[in-house]
Formats: sequence, structure tokens, C-alpha cells
Amino acid sequence: MTLAEIAAILGLEIRGDASLSIEGIAGLVEAGPGQLTFLFSSAYKKYLNDTRAAAVVIRQSDAGDVSIPCIFSENPRLDWARVAGIFDRLPGPDGQIHPRAEISNKASIGEKVSISANAVIEEGARIGEGCCIGPGCFLGRNVSLGENSRLHANVSIYHESRIGRNAIIHSGTVIGSDGFGFEFDQNAGKWVKIPQIYNVVIGDDVELGAQVTIDRGALKDTILGNGIKLDNQVHVGHGVRIGDHTLICANSAIGGSTRIGRYCLIGGGVGIIDNIEIVDRVEVTPMTFVTKPLNEPGRYTSGTGLMKNRDWKRNVVGFARLEELLKRVRRLESDKGS
Amino acid sequence: MTLAEIAAILGLEIRGDASLSIEGIAGLVEAGPGQLTFLFSSAYKKYLNDTRAAAVVIRQSDAGDVSIPCIFSENPRLDWARVAGIFDRLPGPDGQIHPRAEISNKASIGEKVSISANAVIEEGARIGEGCCIGPGCFLGRNVSLGENSRLHANVSIYHESRIGRNAIIHSGTVIGSDGFGFEFDQNAGKWVKIPQIYNVVIGDDVELGAQVTIDRGALKDTILGNGIKLDNQVHVGHGVRIGDHTLICANSAIGGSTRIGRYCLIGGGVGIIDNIEIVDRVEVTPMTFVTKPLNEPGRYTSGTGLMKNRDWKRNVVGFARLEELLKRVRRLESDKGS
Amino acid sequence: MTLAEIAAILGLEIRGDASLSIEGIAGLVEAGPGQLTFLFSSAYKKYLNDTRAAAVVIRQSDAGDVSIPCIFSENPRLDWARVAGIFDRLPGPDGQIHPRAEISNKASIGEKVSISANAVIEEGARIGEGCCIGPGCFLGRNVSLGENSRLHANVSIYHESRIGRNAIIHSGTVIGSDGFGFEFDQNAGKWVKIPQIYNVVIGDDVELGAQVTIDRGALKDTILGNGIKLDNQVHVGHGVRIGDHTLICANSAIGGSTRIGRYCLIGGGVGIIDNIEIVDRVEVTPMTFVTKPLNEPGRYTSGTGLMKNRDWKRNVVGFARLEELLKRVRRLESDKGS
Repeated sequence: MTLAEIAAILGLEIRGDASLSIEGIAGLVEAGPGQLTFLFSSAYKKYLNDTRAAAVVIRQSDAGDVSIPCIFSENPRLDWARVAGIFDRLPGPDGQIHPRAEISNKASIGEKVSISANAVIEEGARIGEGCCIGPGCFLGRNVSLGENSRLHANVSIYHESRIGRNAIIHSGTVIGSDGFGFEFDQNAGKWVKIPQIYNVVIGDDVELGAQVTIDRGALKDTILGNGIKLDNQVHVGHGVRIGDHTLICANSAIGGSTRIGRYCLIGGGVGIIDNIEIVDRVEVTPMTFVTKPLNEPGRYTSGTGLMKNRDWKRNVVGFARLEELLKRVRRLESDKGS
Repeated sequence: MTLAEIAAILGLEIRGDASLSIEGIAGLVEAGPGQLTFLFSSAYKKYLNDTRAAAVVIRQSDAGDVSIPCIFSENPRLDWARVAGIFDRLPGPDGQIHPRAEISNKASIGEKVSISANAVIEEGARIGEGCCIGPGCFLGRNVSLGENSRLHANVSIYHESRIGRNAIIHSGTVIGSDGFGFEFDQNAGKWVKIPQIYNVVIGDDVELGAQVTIDRGALKDTILGNGIKLDNQVHVGHGVRIGDHTLICANSAIGGSTRIGRYCLIGGGVGIIDNIEIVDRVEVTPMTFVTKPLNEPGRYTSGTGLMKNRDWKRNVVGFARLEELLKRVRRLESDKGS
Repeated sequence: MTLAEIAAILGLEIRGDASLSIEGIAGLVEAGPGQLTFLFSSAYKKYLNDTRAAAVVIRQSDAGDVSIPCIFSENPRLDWARVAGIFDRLPGPDGQIHPRAEISNKASIGEKVSISANAVIEEGARIGEGCCIGPGCFLGRNVSLGENSRLHANVSIYHESRIGRNAIIHSGTVIGSDGFGFEFDQNAGKWVKIPQIYNVVIGDDVELGAQVTIDRGALKDTILGNGIKLDNQVHVGHGVRIGDHTLICANSAIGGSTRIGRYCLIGGGVGIIDNIEIVDRVEVTPMTFVTKPLNEPGRYTSGTGLMKNRDWKRNVVGFARLEELLKRVRRLESDKGS
């Protein structure tokens, strides 16, 4: 592929040798001969001096004395997203239904659907046009999957779950497992299971990473809006509601019945307690524990900051004496006053 | 189903129109016409004014001026657990063994067992009466599963694991994987694997959420008692012992050889170090790190509390100066004394 | 097996009855008649008085008045690793390819490879000699797996991933899923996916626990060196690089493009932000959040320490007043000075 062809796809202008052959893309530091790279921020401009890349996608304002051929972009990151697809080796759907897929004759399978070996699809399931179901996936009774959605290998979707169009769901993810609902029976001295009879409903354009778990609801559905992206190993409790275009990073867990707004950014390793409301455009930094409703947009944090273990040991003692310390300072102040 | 029929199942009394048709259950806020709802706490009584529910399960003491039909319950949450089952659409076991299940002829399969397509059951496995094995499950050599246990899709159980009666195990869960045991060989400059030759033994009436991992032991079995409930993505290390009726919420991790008592409540995102003892009836709040044995029942916590990131940044500086701060206050106090 | 035979395998000396029959190994406290136990540390010597074990692997210097037969070892933990294998009941590879395995005729399968039912292996995959692929595993297009590697049940490996020799990969683990890469399109008001076109490359002698996730890269490969051991439910982001012989404990998450050195020890439940460098021989204590590059070897920690919830509530108030407290102490000091 030539630089000219790539620029044409992007609708962007070139400076330099447009006939250059481009074999792939890579980061500024990693790129080698024949590869196209990107300058995402002026701060990294120094790396351009040493790059072995063949060409660079760059803001015109950053391109002053750059010696390699340039594609001028007003938004190199968005153009990166578009170029990367050209070199993606992810095997596309083949439109075939494998003879070893196990499909109920009461399931409804759209046009041009691909289903791999050992997928199991139960009665009442509806698979939209152009969907691609990986090997070992399970779609329970009455599951519905909108057009052009793709399930990678070994995804499990329980009965009655509904997923919109253009979903991308990575391996190992589980949708519609029972919420964690038990009531303690004092007389019997044991926990009684509360059947989780509601469902999971997911909008369009959602991506779920590997080994995400989304529980079904007990007294209401668990609802994810459109354009939501969940990273690997995120857990979503029963009856949770997540607004459109919210992102949640890896290993975070959302307690039951919590409502998260739109355009939120939740860092990795975050815990959010059950049954609270978080408004739109809240940002939670990684490893934070959200213990109360967040009624205002903004950035929220908990934690102590990182230090050498020997320093931490000396300081953490003080944390357990903070109440006492406050009292002692108050006493010093009042003594001074008298 | 009529309100009278539901009340009869529960053995409870009705006030109002017993012939009312009930099509489902839902939360106070979510319930619509034809649905039965629940008043779990007097604190939510105000929502009853606006509910569109057809009827309510309620303590008689809360029902004074409630205008919709009531079922009187001394424990609405426990009765909820019983009613919910009526409306559960979870497909029941069909008692069939799918021709595409792969079952060793040296496995022992009880009466009325259901096994789905692509399940793999190895020699010596014993599956109790009434069990239900979902698609894609793996049961290794000599695994035993007590009566009426249910494995949802894509559960993996390693050789020699023993699981009691009435287990519910959700998709993706792994039981009996190797514990994390390595010894550093100074001469070779690398880690040597310690074979994990003990097993996992799980009691009766246990529920494991989706993507739980329970490792097998190195020098002793990993043992879970009766009535234990583990939420999604919980990790249990090798040789851990968990007492009866303990609950552990999502994304928590228990270090190897730790012993947790009975009737404990472990919140989500908790970490517990290896090789400690925690007595009965301990409660650990979410996202806490348990660093030492807990010898008394009670509630335990770590963490800083949540705040706006800009406030956190100003305060966290102080955490790293707590040792110094304690010293400065001591000096002020001693100067005052002199 | 006799004690003499075990000692011969280890090349170690015996004191006591060498003809003793040994049926297994167990911990000091758990061991019963017929079992061999181990004294790993002089600190546990008191337990030897009460042990029911038949014999003990022990440092000669600790064995003074021990009454049961001894095998003398300079490193009882390393010898434990060697002995344990003798009693391991893990079913070995059978060298068979199951007729229900689904293998592309364009895949290359080495000698003595075992492949279980319902494994799916796509075109271009290369499986080295002696590998063992569990039931329900998926190996995508062009995946390569070095000699003598073992995948337990239900492992998913995306296209183009390369894994070295002697790998052990536990159930549910996912390798090569898409990194979490999105760019916000202001005009469209939604996230645009950045195709993750690079691969995962893993060295030799690596063990990955159950439900590990390792994402493929966007602008460079995700690279794990040799001898790395990852515990269950660890997440490794896209473009991460982990040095040889590093250990990461359960439920930890590593942010994208972060580089971790060799011989590091990362505790469980740790979070590490993206795009930082951590040098060799760093130790991170469990549940720590690593927020910045670590340029020196050593031990690092964050968190507040554990306490009773009622004490924590009184102290945590102080954390949110640390900035104020520092100011008040400064004022007291300056007042005193004047």
C-alpha cells in the first residue's frame, strides 16, 4: 500500500514521496523501515529525530522541519484509529455456519451470520444479520443479538439477555449470570437464594473486554446504554444501570442497583458500592473506592499515594492516630489562646 | 396467577382483592400494573403512594393506610425469595444427555441427570442424581458432584475436585487449578514449580458466581464448607479453608492457606493475605486489605475515604508526612510543658 | 514407594528406617501415618513433636533430636518441589488427538501432541511437539505454541499470539484479546475503536493461572519474557512488557504500555498505571496502587493499614483534614517562635 493510497482513504494531504510503500504502522520508538508512525502530541516531537519510520501522521503545525514524508492530520489519534483497521489481521467473519455448531431449530439466525464449531444456541435465540459467533460460545434461550455483533471464543450469555447492534464481546465474558442475592434465614441459620428473574439489556455499539461479568437483575433489569466500553475483568452487579458512552477500566466492580451516568470515566481496579447514583461526566481515578453518591461532575479519588515500604510503615502509624492528633492540636491551640 | 394463589403458596393472609391477577414481581419504583411489589423497610413507605404495583407484600404494621391489596408478611425479604421462584424463566434441567456431550464410559452418571452439548466428562467422574451440566463444561478425572447440583455453561473443574449437593456454579468458574506455588532456585536463577497435588473439597448448598477461581492445594486440600456463597470473580488461593455460611462479594482475593470462619461477610474488592486466621462472624468492608489475623468478631476496614481529586491531592501530601507531624506535635507539647 | 527410593531420586541421605513405605506428602500439621512431611523453617520445629508424619525432609542442623526418620536436605522447599511431582495425580497427556477436536488441515501439529474434545485450532496454527491442549480450547489463526506446553480446559488464544516452550496455562485464560483503546470523537460524541493490530509474544517456561487476561497491542506487541508466573485473574494491558522471572499475584492489573523489569514480585490486588517503567527487582506489596515510575529496586506500598471499623471511622476524618492539620501545626510553631 502506498502513502498516497492511505492518505486518500483518510482524505488527507501528503508532504513528501507519495509513492512510498507502507507495510504497517507502529509507535514512534518502535517503528521501522516501511512503517507509518504517528505524532500524537508535540511533547514527543524529539522522538521524530531518531525514528526509523518511513512516514508520519502529524499535525501540520508540528511538521515544520520533519524530514520524512508526512500526512497532515488535524487529529492524529482519530486518524490512527482509521488507519489501523487497514493493517488488522483479525480474521473476518466467513458467513459460514459450522456443522459442529449446535443450533436449536427454534432459533432465528439472520443473513450472513457466521457461527463457529461448538457454539451452542438455544431455542428462541435471535441472531441478527452479519453476526459472528466464536467457538464454544453459549447463547441461552431467547437471547437476542443485534446486527453485526461479534462474540469471540467461549462467551456465555444466559437466557433472555438482549444485546444491541455492533457489539464486540471478548472471550470468557459472561452475561446474565445470577446477581448476588441472598437473604439470611435466622431460623434455619443459612442463606436463602433470591431468584434473579430479571434480565440484562445492552444497547448498541458496546464493547466488553475479556472475562467481564454482567449479572442479571432481581427486581429490575441490568441495563447498559449505547457506546459503553468495559475493559477486561470488570464486574457489573445486578440491577446496575450504566449510561451511554461511559468507559470502565480493567478489574473494576460495580455494586448492585448502582446507577452510573453518561460519559463517565471509571479507572481500573475501582470499587463502587451498591445502590448509589453517579451523575454524568464523573471521572474516578484508578483503585478508588466510591462509598457515596456522586452528585456533581468532576474527578474523585481515594487512597494514600505510593511510597517506599519503610517510609509507609512509619507514616501509616500516624493514620491510626489521626483522631488523637486532631485532639492534641486542638488542645495546643486552646492552651495558646488562654 | 392470582394473589390468592401466591398467598396460599406462602401461607400468608391477604387484605383486598384476592382474585387479582399477578403477572410478575418488581421493585417499588419499577413495578407496573399486574405486578406484585415488596416493602422491605418502613423507610421506603413513601414510595408506596406512587407505586403502580397491583399489590404489595408488606409487614402488617406498615400496611395501615395502604390502598392497594396487601399480603401480610413478617419477613418480606424471605417471602420475596420464595415468590421470585414462581416467575423465574431459567430453563429447568431436561433430564437429557446430549449426543454431543463427551462422557467417559468410566464415569458414573446418576438418574435424571442433564448434560448439554460439548460438555466433557472424564473417567472416574461421579455425577449425582438430578445434576445439570451446561454446555462446554469440563469435569476432569474423578471429579464428584453431589445431587441436584447445577453447572452453567463453560465451567472447568480439574481432576479429583469434590463438590457437594445443591451447588450452583456460574459460567466461567474454574475449580481446582494449580495454586500459585513456586520456589526460587538461586543457582538456576529461576522459579521452580511446586506441584499442587491436593484437591478442592466443597460442601453442600454452595453457590459460586461467574468466573470464580478456586485453586487446589499443595500440602493440604482447599476446603469450602456448607452454605458458602461467593460472588463473581472471587479468587480463593490454595489450601484456604472457608467456614459454613460465609459470603464473599465480587472481585475479592483470598491468599493461600488462610482460614476464614463461619458466618463471615467479606465485601467486594477485598484482599486477604495468605496464611492468617479469621474467626467466625467477622465482617470486612469492601476494598479493605486484611493484613493480619482477626481474632475477634466485628467489622474491619482500611482505606482513606473518597473525596474530590483536588482535595485528595492536598491531603495525601499529609499522609506521607504523618511521622513528621506526630513528632512536631510532640515537640510543641513538650515545649509547652517546659 | 519407600523412603529409600525417594531419597535416591533426590540424591539425599536418610537417617532412620529407609524401608518405610511412603504414600504421600502433607504439611507438618496435616500429615498422617504413611506421609512424608517437611520442615521449611526452624521456627516450626515445635510442630515436629506432635506430627503424625512417617518421616520428614529436614536440614541436618534442625534434625538433632527428631525421632522420626529424616531425609537431610540443604533446601527442603526445593526438594519439596521435586518430591511433590512423584505423588501428582494430574492426568498426563495421552498423545491422542480426539476425533471431536476441530483442527484446520492448514494447522501444523507436532509429534506426540494431545488434543482433547471440542478444542478448535485454526489455520496456520503451529503446535510444538509434546503439547497438550485441553477440551474447549481455542487457538486462533497462526497461533504458535512451543514444545511441551500445556493448555488446561477452555483457554482462548486469539490469532497471531506466540507462546514459547513449557508453558502451563490454566482454564479460562484469554490471550490476545483487544487492548482497551478508544479515542473520543468530539463531533460524533462517541468513542471510536482503535484496532489492536499487534500481538502477544510470550517466552519459555511461563505459567499463567486461571482467568488471566493478556491483551494484544495497538502500536507494539505485548511481550512477556521467560520464566514469568502470573497468578489467577491477573490482567495485563496492551503493549505491556514484563521481564524474565517476574511474579504477579492474583487479581492484579497492569495498565497499558507499562514496562516491568526482571525478578520483580508484584503482590495480589495491585494496580499499576499505564505507561510507566518499573526497574528490575522491585517488590510491590499487595493491594498497592503504583502511580509513578519505580526507578530503584526495593519494596513499595500504599494503603492505610487495617483497623476496626469504628476506629477507622474516627481516624479517616483526619485524613480529609491533613492539609488543614499541617497548616495548624505550622501556625502553632511560628506563634511559638515569635
